[in-house]
Amino acid sequence: MQFLSDNAAAVHPAVWSAMLAADAPDSPYDTDTLSRELDGAFSSLFGRECTALWVATGTAANCLALAAMVPPHGGVVCHREAHIEADEGGAPGFYLHGAKLMLAEGRSAKLTPESIAAVIDPIRDDVHQVQPHAVSITQASEYGCVYRPQEVAAIAAFAKARGLRLHMDGARFANAVAYLGCAPAEACGGVDALSFGFVKNGGLGAEAIVFFEPGLADVVRYRRKRAGHLQSKGRFLAAQILAMLKDDLWLQNGRAANAVAAEIAAAAGPRLLHPVEANEIFLTVSDEERAELRSQGFSFYDWGVDGARLVTSWNADPDHVGALAKAIRAL
Amino acid sequence: MQFLSDNAAAVHPAVWSAMLAADAPDSPYDTDTLSRELDGAFSSLFGRECTALWVATGTAANCLALAAMVPPHGGVVCHREAHIEADEGGAPGFYLHGAKLMLAEGRSAKLTPESIAAVIDPIRDDVHQVQPHAVSITQASEYGCVYRPQEVAAIAAFAKARGLRLHMDGARFANAVAYLGCAPAEACGGVDALSFGFVKNGGLGAEAIVFFEPGLADVVRYRRKRAGHLQSKGRFLAAQILAMLKDDLWLQNGRAANAVAAEIAAAAGPRLLHPVEANEIFLTVSDEERAELRSQGFSFYDWGVDGARLVTSWNADPDHVGALAKAIRAL
Amino acid sequence: MQFLSDNAAAVHPAVWSAMLAADAPDSPYDTDTLSRELDGAFSSLFGRECTALWVATGTAANCLALAAMVPPHGGVVCHREAHIEADEGGAPGFYLHGAKLMLAEGRSAKLTPESIAAVIDPIRDDVHQVQPHAVSITQASEYGCVYRPQEVAAIAAFAKARGLRLHMDGARFANAVAYLGCAPAEACGGVDALSFGFVKNGGLGAEAIVFFEPGLADVVRYRRKRAGHLQSKGRFLAAQILAMLKDDLWLQNGRAANAVAAEIAAAAGPRLLHPVEANEIFLTVSDEERAELRSQGFSFYDWGVDGARLVTSWNADPDHVGALAKAIRAL
Amino acid sequence: MQFLSDNAAAVHPAVWSAMLAADAPDSPYDTDTLSRELDGAFSSLFGRECTALWVATGTAANCLALAAMVPPHGGVVCHREAHIEADEGGAPGFYLHGAKLMLAEGRSAKLTPESIAAVIDPIRDDVHQVQPHAVSITQASEYGCVYRPQEVAAIAAFAKARGLRLHMDGARFANAVAYLGCAPAEACGGVDALSFGFVKNGGLGAEAIVFFEPGLADVVRYRRKRAGHLQSKGRFLAAQILAMLKDDLWLQNGRAANAVAAEIAAAAGPRLLHPVEANEIFLTVSDEERAELRSQGFSFYDWGVDGARLVTSWNADPDHVGALAKAIRAL
Repeated sequence: MQFLSDNAAAVHPAVWSAMLAADAPDSPYDTDTLSRELDGAFSSLFGRECTALWVATGTAANCLALAAMVPPHGGVVCHREAHIEADEGGAPGFYLHGAKLMLAEGRSAKLTPESIAAVIDPIRDDVHQVQPHAVSITQASEYGCVYRPQEVAAIAAFAKARGLRLHMDGARFANAVAYLGCAPAEACGGVDALSFGFVKNGGLGAEAIVFFEPGLADVVRYRRKRAGHLQSKGRFLAAQILAMLKDDLWLQNGRAANAVAAEIAAAAGPRLLHPVEANEIFLTVSDEERAELRSQGFSFYDWGVDGARLVTSWNADPDHVGALAKAIRAL
Repeated sequence: MQFLSDNAAAVHPAVWSAMLAADAPDSPYDTDTLSRELDGAFSSLFGRECTALWVATGTAANCLALAAMVPPHGGVVCHREAHIEADEGGAPGFYLHGAKLMLAEGRSAKLTPESIAAVIDPIRDDVHQVQPHAVSITQASEYGCVYRPQEVAAIAAFAKARGLRLHMDGARFANAVAYLGCAPAEACGGVDALSFGFVKNGGLGAEAIVFFEPGLADVVRYRRKRAGHLQSKGRFLAAQILAMLKDDLWLQNGRAANAVAAEIAAAAGPRLLHPVEANEIFLTVSDEERAELRSQGFSFYDWGVDGARLVTSWNADPDHVGALAKAIRAL
Repeated sequence: MQFLSDNAAAVHPAVWSAMLAADAPDSPYDTDTLSRELDGAFSSLFGRECTALWVATGTAANCLALAAMVPPHGGVVCHREAHIEADEGGAPGFYLHGAKLMLAEGRSAKLTPESIAAVIDPIRDDVHQVQPHAVSITQASEYGCVYRPQEVAAIAAFAKARGLRLHMDGARFANAVAYLGCAPAEACGGVDALSFGFVKNGGLGAEAIVFFEPGLADVVRYRRKRAGHLQSKGRFLAAQILAMLKDDLWLQNGRAANAVAAEIAAAAGPRLLHPVEANEIFLTVSDEERAELRSQGFSFYDWGVDGARLVTSWNADPDHVGALAKAIRAL
Repeated sequence: MQFLSDNAAAVHPAVWSAMLAADAPDSPYDTDTLSRELDGAFSSLFGRECTALWVATGTAANCLALAAMVPPHGGVVCHREAHIEADEGGAPGFYLHGAKLMLAEGRSAKLTPESIAAVIDPIRDDVHQVQPHAVSITQASEYGCVYRPQEVAAIAAFAKARGLRLHMDGARFANAVAYLGCAPAEACGGVDALSFGFVKNGGLGAEAIVFFEPGLADVVRYRRKRAGHLQSKGRFLAAQILAMLKDDLWLQNGRAANAVAAEIAAAAGPRLLHPVEANEIFLTVSDEERAELRSQGFSFYDWGVDGARLVTSWNADPDHVGALAKAIRAL
């Protein structure tokens, strides 16, 4: 009974169908029919004109987006526990040619205008210190917490006032929108580029970088090829994304994972370390309790000395979830 | 009737089957069962211990391999028309952090010890000039020509004598081995790392970097993640590769594409610009003749003023091939 | 009465003499007679064989040394307030091709094995996290505090045990050795490469990178040229360094600056924020007190809300120093 | 009797005087009085507003200028024998983060609109090929040949029409202007940034990057620091440059070196491989003749199998020059 991560879950049948249907030969790279449909599909979804490029991984999506916003001598403000800082093997240093991640604090891995200001205000405007050029926030955050539309808007306004670009790592954007129940555009209002994740949510190997500022996409087209991320059979990536967008499958899957997480959260009650707003649950559990859960067949990551991280997937088995909730209550 | 490229052909049914079979949850990245089988599978194939890592594209395979061989201040000798120089959007400059490609000449885009020496012998051994650290050759070459085992061995011996690493871009390694009829190991003898291509040969989005020098793989593990190429559902890439290796499907597909190319080559006769040893045909054809072929429904790339490039795929339609051969004869 | 920094002080007459004497034509870059003397001069000074290269700035010295120790996908542990992190405009990101600075804590900007361990022990040994490859310490530290020989030795032993290289930023190495009264080798025992500063200590534009591990120098020779730091009239840089080494001028100048700082420190008494062990004084002073000092003609940097940083130079005017000491006492 | 290079010649007395006069303490980096005078001095010289930054070497000047013009995924067209391609140890790859040098042909190492077009016209406007973003020309060229004002203007117009920036490597700009007898502005009309060399012409270690497009300078300020080229005692670099500009000392020195070269050229007559327009002479001489010259005490570089390169300096000894001319005539 696997609650380690959503990153290796099964692929949704609709995604498989779309990939198989895309097997008819078409032109290579992103010149095929399906890849050409992405801009339209995302423009419909967000209710405004945007440009979208596929890539295979969230790391590539995040770093390509940021590389279009930040020169090599600049900096990006992100949370100290952001994925780009903590879990991408230094990819931002590679893609941004040595630009600097500037680490901000914030409850549940969320930033605020104030926490960003606390990082950038002390930076002297001289050449001896790296100057910030962008902010990156994660929706939902590393702790499964969701920025409310007004929180995103406040950060966007702050960024704009300071001349900073705004990127959103939306590896779990679906879970965030499912939680908020708002229009997708409201969950990322004012953002210049969004890494829209599908792999953790039923996809196989395709994420979208959605640019609300089109000049950025033009740069990323070159950078994507230069990074070896322009797959020749790109139609299979486009097919995955279009299948996920169709009939809001992405949102349904996000809701499914969230619902399951909520069930576990209810069982965990006062043990919760962070509000459960998406599909991640962070618990206080002792060594003995962790051992007990594992002895019952549940797999998950330790989180610090007395904690655990559990992640639910779009296709979580209700029996497993019920069993887990029961086991947690019984601790 | 498409002869533009092999890079967007259909995926082989056995590859699809293997991918679908891999859908059961497993651990993420390259810690799954299938990914762990790669080293063994390639060690069997090559009859010696080697390490293999999957990536999605040939560009990533080539550049990750080279990045493990060449420091940022070094250089790589390759043919002036090599893919890494001409068609990868500057990816070597990115992955190798500004290392230099040193361009050599050679008939049919093949190098020889002599043509490599012609590039590196004039380089003074001082800090004002970039020093070569590796050689990269392409099997089969950009013009579909194949290095004989003794030709590879001569280059490998030369490289070793000069203290240079040797990389082989094997985007069409299958076609080369099919042509040579030798053991795979003989087609790449003395090579430190091989980009073993599957995408042009029935795969969907998976290539292997095969390291015959294991220290290189250790570096590339980090670099692959850093480049955003460590897919979380990596089992689907491993599945593709294992399916291609099973029962030598890769070789069968290579043979099929070669056979078709040979049929067209026979029709082209004296029009051939290069020997047809793999699945690419380069012809002399006038503007009028190109127009004539296109009017009959054949698609292909112009090659210079009076030439054409035609590429065959593993699943070429015999009727299309017959029609093309006939059309060429009739010109 | 300038106490802003030692970085713009006058050039020592012996340095001028040596530069003027070096004007006779010699061979370019570092092939001249004087540049060839550096290895011997530093080997004598440190009582062991070492290799030394000149560069114009401390930033270049630090970053070139580190670039030879750390691959682009690696990391360097340094203090959160180290010069390489806070004041070099992102130069490590540039020279190390995106490698990561890993920020450690420590009183008075000094590291210990424990503070280094606190940073690296939580790093999982997997490809998702950047792995440390080196440690950089500053002698004297950013707060003018000096590592005792046994402190350096403890860090060196720890680094060696963890497989990490050790770099020392010795922009004020002279002040540190002057304070310690030990052999220069003891002040940097176990270090792989030392940035030995002269510019803040009577030089014009020359620092030495001293390699106790010769393989590193071989790489840096290429990297220095590649960074545009191989001056064609390098004899003038070598001349400066040799003049500073002659008769221990570097040490005399360091002592002179320290002595003056000690005089001011004595006046400051309980206002001191850090022990004064080199030529920097950090004081608690209120806004009003800062204004009062400035109104008397003293220039210095504010340090936070209620502090000031004063730096003394090798050629500080005794009258200015006396006046400052008196003014501080009178606050 | 040294004719190896102008790069290690003596420093002009006026430069020494200016440096010694600059020894009075001033503020650090480029905030001192002298550094602030550079913009005005160059604006006067060129008769238009421009911005100028000092750096220690021509390599740094060239690469910093180009880095402000070309993104990491772009390219720079230069001559196959340009210094940035052949003699800077791969510095453009470092500073431009892997951007590509695109090598053009041209008599005497000079480019023309046609030779640039021959390189860039075949580049497809797609992401698989690196796109050109700038052109770099050398005034005087690697073979000591000078672009006439109308030649520069033609290249500038071509570059503008193609959306390319234009950089001029003016390591020997003084020699070029001395030869042309025109206003300095005419020798670099339409150029976006000029590396104005002084080190080969009587300076010690200071070159200027002159920006005719001010936005570029703003980027380079950060990049210069990031590259470790912002010397803290920058006033000594500014002093050198201002001394060279005063009373057109740069031009006098250029004329002196040119005059001497012309004297040798007259002696060489039909042996000349290139027109002698600056301070470099390329001769046909056999092995025996080279040996003969060397036996008489003349030092110079071999140039290919049957050639020699001789370079004259601003302070060439008339007796040496006379002796050389005589020796060449006597061959």
